[in-house]
Amino acid sequence: MAEKLYGIIDLKEEAKEPAMPETQKKTEKKTKKTAGKSLRVVKKTQKSNMRKISSDAELQVIPLGGLEEIGKNMTLFVCGEDAVIVDCGMSFPDDDLLGVDAVIPDFSYLAEVKDRLRGLVLTHGHEDHIGGIPYLLKQYNVPIYGTPLTMGLVGYKLKEHGLADKAEMHVVHTGDTVELGCFRIEFIRMNHSIPDAAALAINTPAGTLIHTGDFKIDYTPVFGETADLARLGEYGKQGVLALLCDSTNAEKSGSSLTESQVGKSFEALFSRAEGKRVIIATFSTNIYRIQQIIDFAEKHGRKIAISGRSMVNTVSIARDLGYLTYKEDTFVDINAMGRFRPEQLVIITTGSQGEPMSALTRIAAGEHRFVKVDKKDCIIISANPIVGNERAVINVINSLLSLGSDVIYESMYEIHASGHACQDEIKLVLSLTQPQYFMPVHGEIKHLIKNAGNARQKGITPDRIVIGKIGDVVTFRHGKVFREGTVPSGRVLVDGLGVGDVGKVVLRDRQVLANEGMLVVVCSIDSNTGSLIVGPDIVSRGFVYVKESEELIEEAKALVSGIIARQEGSRRRNVSNMKSEIREEVADMIYRKLQRNPMVIPVIMEI
Amino acid sequence: MAEKLYGIIDLKEEAKEPAMPETQKKTEKKTKKTAGKSLRVVKKTQKSNMRKISSDAELQVIPLGGLEEIGKNMTLFVCGEDAVIVDCGMSFPDDDLLGVDAVIPDFSYLAEVKDRLRGLVLTHGHEDHIGGIPYLLKQYNVPIYGTPLTMGLVGYKLKEHGLADKAEMHVVHTGDTVELGCFRIEFIRMNHSIPDAAALAINTPAGTLIHTGDFKIDYTPVFGETADLARLGEYGKQGVLALLCDSTNAEKSGSSLTESQVGKSFEALFSRAEGKRVIIATFSTNIYRIQQIIDFAEKHGRKIAISGRSMVNTVSIARDLGYLTYKEDTFVDINAMGRFRPEQLVIITTGSQGEPMSALTRIAAGEHRFVKVDKKDCIIISANPIVGNERAVINVINSLLSLGSDVIYESMYEIHASGHACQDEIKLVLSLTQPQYFMPVHGEIKHLIKNAGNARQKGITPDRIVIGKIGDVVTFRHGKVFREGTVPSGRVLVDGLGVGDVGKVVLRDRQVLANEGMLVVVCSIDSNTGSLIVGPDIVSRGFVYVKESEELIEEAKALVSGIIARQEGSRRRNVSNMKSEIREEVADMIYRKLQRNPMVIPVIMEI
Repeated sequence: MAEKLYGIIDLKEEAKEPAMPETQKKTEKKTKKTAGKSLRVVKKTQKSNMRKISSDAELQVIPLGGLEEIGKNMTLFVCGEDAVIVDCGMSFPDDDLLGVDAVIPDFSYLAEVKDRLRGLVLTHGHEDHIGGIPYLLKQYNVPIYGTPLTMGLVGYKLKEHGLADKAEMHVVHTGDTVELGCFRIEFIRMNHSIPDAAALAINTPAGTLIHTGDFKIDYTPVFGETADLARLGEYGKQGVLALLCDSTNAEKSGSSLTESQVGKSFEALFSRAEGKRVIIATFSTNIYRIQQIIDFAEKHGRKIAISGRSMVNTVSIARDLGYLTYKEDTFVDINAMGRFRPEQLVIITTGSQGEPMSALTRIAAGEHRFVKVDKKDCIIISANPIVGNERAVINVINSLLSLGSDVIYESMYEIHASGHACQDEIKLVLSLTQPQYFMPVHGEIKHLIKNAGNARQKGITPDRIVIGKIGDVVTFRHGKVFREGTVPSGRVLVDGLGVGDVGKVVLRDRQVLANEGMLVVVCSIDSNTGSLIVGPDIVSRGFVYVKESEELIEEAKALVSGIIARQEGSRRRNVSNMKSEIREEVADMIYRKLQRNPMVIPVIMEI
Repeated sequence: MAEKLYGIIDLKEEAKEPAMPETQKKTEKKTKKTAGKSLRVVKKTQKSNMRKISSDAELQVIPLGGLEEIGKNMTLFVCGEDAVIVDCGMSFPDDDLLGVDAVIPDFSYLAEVKDRLRGLVLTHGHEDHIGGIPYLLKQYNVPIYGTPLTMGLVGYKLKEHGLADKAEMHVVHTGDTVELGCFRIEFIRMNHSIPDAAALAINTPAGTLIHTGDFKIDYTPVFGETADLARLGEYGKQGVLALLCDSTNAEKSGSSLTESQVGKSFEALFSRAEGKRVIIATFSTNIYRIQQIIDFAEKHGRKIAISGRSMVNTVSIARDLGYLTYKEDTFVDINAMGRFRPEQLVIITTGSQGEPMSALTRIAAGEHRFVKVDKKDCIIISANPIVGNERAVINVINSLLSLGSDVIYESMYEIHASGHACQDEIKLVLSLTQPQYFMPVHGEIKHLIKNAGNARQKGITPDRIVIGKIGDVVTFRHGKVFREGTVPSGRVLVDGLGVGDVGKVVLRDRQVLANEGMLVVVCSIDSNTGSLIVGPDIVSRGFVYVKESEELIEEAKALVSGIIARQEGSRRRNVSNMKSEIREEVADMIYRKLQRNPMVIPVIMEI
């Protein structure tokens, strides 16, 4: 019966269509256009198709990322013989994950449903929603569905990983519905800090879920329209089984700032910066912000140069897809800035989070190839530091100030608007959708709990609120919710080209090496007599500056020689014992002298 | 002439007096009393003694810490044949100082003035003002002057370092003046987040400086009085050459919250926590906060247990000195809590900054010996996270929430009041003291610049504002200010018992080891022929999990064998070349395969 109502449309025929158009030479004022051909979709969900909860259908919601954490969002939905993934993000490593480049979800459970995987559906193009896709595709080449800018960003990412040819990419628009097995998924326009963000109405035989994705409600967006509140309301009237709701700003009362307000602050700051070069650091994917900077730059007769790899790429993708409107001669090459006076220039740059290798950090350190700043610069950091980045951002601010530049970073100027809904916006969506169940997603524990509080204020009783963990199997059956066991889940660490090969042991060793350094004790002994032939030599790194610690090193050597001599005659002599003794006695001696615990690594060669 | 006016009082005779009284058994309700005998001091500066700027006197102000940074505050004042140090703090290491325990100022310049050092004068007892003292005293046993609680905390610290017997400690009170060579220094009562904080009026033949120390203006302090504004005004009327002013909150408009308001929030929270145990984490030195907790605990019939080493020590010092008022039976041992029901208890604990080994962090991890929390606990984090600690604090909050506890951490409850003056308070002190020059201190560059902005708003022209760096020699001569060169200054790293032996090389190695791990390649070769005898062996840590990377390790071994074989016949064979080749080729191979850069350490033993 489910198959009949939710007949599978064969999407394969459009699969060969490139998701992104060829880059075209543009010489006139651009206007927005759509990216690539979209696939065949049901253009608008017919009301008659909406159905009541089927008595026997069962829907599993299995979060694989994004609960009890901010980042690597990924949720698996399983219903009968069909499974759909929503988002596949990455997160940036915490400080304790030494040397790790990225963290992605543990995909291992997907092996269980691999024959049922009908698609990967994306809410928007931020890294914490798309960053894991290359790693997923290497294992499961599942078709991908997303809005034009989202797919533009995914396409670029897949190209970098050499996966662009292989991937099956489908561009859809908000208002469209895709049918994936028994899933009928409508993309509903939402506002966020990147264009083309969508909530998903996930219609299944077991009922309809609304997944907000990341969202805010912006009544005066810079371009595009306010979130499709009416459509959310329609779903509410028809009956929503559960609302999965962004929790990032659930702690914040009131409503988020409209993006347009940032423009008003820029207006004032461009006046303040008269006679100076303006440098603005922001998130590369905030196309609205970049559009506003373009508008003010053009109004003040300034050219724009772009700095930072991700900013260059994202602006290029957004320009190609028609998401930015600008005059023909507004953009200039960063290495051609010399042709203009400071007051004729705006530089848009990465580094608003103080990332170590970013353009702004290099500018602050005086190490940027093209941009040297001084008192002729006004630098605006148009972003709030993400938790954990505060120190890095402030260090950059201090360095820029010490070079004599004017630096604007306070919240008093309203130079940043969050992309995430605060409490009143969440309550608005709750009011529209009137869900039977509420499941806070996209948040650390504190955000999930606060968001549950928002739902309770809207009259949703605790038994209808699901605060989950990743790996939980949340099952909807007969209009009721059950927690039915867990599946493998967790984090997989990416370090260079290695995926998953850095684990607990390696991290623990890195921690010790980081804090204490190490000593390698090397010697050769006679394999028959056990007597010392060469050594002991000691090589140390990250422990003490050896040239100034000769006495200590000599003492350690003498200690090791003693241990070997002591065992020389011993019947229970073996290399493994010798190593343990060296490790312990050298460590003890060093701790006594210095109260430090370097890693002691004995290497004994038997000859 | 200077000697005549500022005749040296011999303070040595009181030097034998213990700074701290013996701990006494207290069985009755305590009241505040003073700590120890104070030394002979001029009880109140006589107005007639104040003098105009002498025509030939020269005063050097040399900041050795606390500028362009928050922490390790220390300033040297030199005038003629006399020198005085104000404060000697430590700071906590930034994330890039891997494994470092503490950072103290570089004292090396003191060697130049060692025969002129008359005293170390302390503004208050926080670590960033007293934490460096043990390291200073090991080099220069200079007499120390400070208020009772300050000296109590210093005394405890010196005892830990085995320096208590040797140190010459003088307890003074606000309102007192000490004469140190040509310096006449008055302690002026200020408010701060620790009792007994003082500003210093530093009267010298070259003029009077006011050093605010750390301060706020609290019109309704929990105990004690509002800062001695009138005395600051008197100095203003007499003429202040320069104001050295705390900049920590110089970015914040308005005034800081009064400590009493925190009490009002506690009142509400104790009601909310009815039926639950209350756990409050705060700074151990905030005796006002602790007094308020005592008051509410007693009011609600709760006992108090103390957890965390520094909390136990500080509360004990404050109790001994009479800075805490409490009923005889209020305090209970943490291991005797079992005798009381949750709702009869308050635990005061360390860990408000999410410090890894602190009591609250151990509680959150379920690793505290005596305190296990669940939904019968209401935990209040009564502190704001210091920049850089945000992530750690939030991790603790999330863990506590996941255990089911109620956690209060939002600023909306006003559960913390900063100890540092905001803009209006700074402007009040500027109004009172009317200094000729303004020198912002205690702050990062951004704070110093903002504080300069406060002075400019009060009409102090840029030429009268000194934004210094540590090591600057700021000279006042003929009522004018000059920057006259610099002296050695910087940071000295403390790691375990080692002071200064961790430097750039060690830190750089720790960084590489932390992010990439390392490989040691060991082999023995024949010293005559160069042929391989044993090995190569490879030991790796923090790089890959060796058991799962055998192929890579085998490939590296083969590569090394090849390099040795290749050199075996070569005339230009030498061990140093061999090592370079091993290092480069193994690193290249690994980078090609994994895009990682572990440290490669070749050890070749010649036999």
